[in-house]
Formats: sequence, C-alpha cells, structure tokens
Amino acid sequence: MDDCIFCKIVKGEIPSRKVFENDRVLAFHDIQPLAPAHVLVIPKKHIASMNEAQEEDAAVLGELLLTAKQVAGDLGIAESGYRLVNNVGPDSGQLVYHIHVHVLGGEQLGGLNVKA
Amino acid sequence: MDDCIFCKIVKGEIPSRKVFENDRVLAFHDIQPLAPAHVLVIPKKHIASMNEAQEEDAAVLGELLLTAKQVAGDLGIAESGYRLVNNVGPDSGQLVYHIHVHVLGGEQLGGLNVKA
Repeated sequence: MDDCIFCKIVKGEIPSRKVFENDRVLAFHDIQPLAPAHVLVIPKKHIASMNEAQEEDAAVLGELLLTAKQVAGDLGIAESGYRLVNNVGPDSGQLVYHIHVHVLGGEQLGGLNVKA
Repeated sequence: MDDCIFCKIVKGEIPSRKVFENDRVLAFHDIQPLAPAHVLVIPKKHIASMNEAQEEDAAVLGELLLTAKQVAGDLGIAESGYRLVNNVGPDSGQLVYHIHVHVLGGEQLGGLNVKA
C-alpha cells in the first residue's frame, strides 16, 4: 500500500527504532509511547485491520503474538508483566490501518477501558 | 490444570455464556463486563500466559485472533470497532493464568493506558 506509513517503515522509507525483524514481522518502538515500554509488532504484509485478516493469515498472526512475547523478554518486562493490544476500527481508536500489536509495560498499567 | 477456572469452563464444570466453540478454542461472555460487549477467547489447551506460549502454539494463537474477529462480527461490532487485549503478568492485571484474549467494544473505548 503506497500510502501506508507502516508499509513505508517496512520498506525503510521512514526510519524506526527496530527491536526485531525477520522476513514476516517487524517490531519497533512507538514514537508516542504510552508506557515506559511501548513497542509495535506488525506483519510485513499489509493487512488493514483484524477485520481484513483471513484464514491464510493465521500463521503470521500467531507469530505476531510470539514475537511480542520475545520482545517483552528482550525489554526485560516478561516477569513484571505487559499488555498486548490490537485496536480495530473507530471505537478502539485505531489510527494506522495496518495491523499492529501494541506491547505495553514497564509500570502498573491502567484498566482495560478507563476513560481519561 | 485441576485448579484453573478456565479449564473448568472448558470442561463444562463451571457454566459460561458461550458464543463460539470448536475443538481448539472457546469464546464466552466475561462475567464482569468492562464494556457493552466483552467476550473472552481462550485456547482449550492450558497455557498460563503468553510467557509460557511456545512455537508449537503459533497456530492456536493465530486462531484466537481470527476467532476474536469472528466473534466481533457475530456481536455486531465489527464495523463500529473493538479492542483485543491479552494481559500478561502482574503489571497488566492478569487475573486468571490461562491465556485469554479480551474482545471489548460497543462504545468508544478509553485509552490504552489510562489510570482510573
């Protein structure tokens, strides 16, 4: 997708602070962190949101979660704990329409649905 | 796991309001909903948290996310949006140590890490 910011990060056209990469997934620090540790894990394949994910994407979706686990370990928050979040559509506040799993940690996190 | 509440739900020893079930995954309404729609999607296999998930679990982890997508559609919140959350360990507030993906929606959700 030519106008997708995360596709541009995948292609190296926009810089990112990468923490993990292989042929299928990429993990990099969120530029507007909402916790002391805040990394995004994305598939290199453009999938706009979970609504667009298909059966054929099951393997890469599983890999996103296992990569998030690995990233948490690398960040030193595996034992203290972390939250994995995938936002889908307007009510969630999804901003970039390319699937991304947030890895949040490094402090006691807020509730699952607390309004500011 | 004999003392795991979600394993007891899988075995039918504790009742639940199921919304989807197959041989590998189960989805049911959270008994303490934090949003108008709040369903949990779990693997039938006991995995305490994402920290304990292994490469061999990639397929069922992917299926959890695709099931969450399907559940969101069945609940009528696919287009309005929803959030998928997996809590891991103390800082996240994980309460039950059997992997569960929260599906939250039905209203504009709060931020990703807002303290009450």
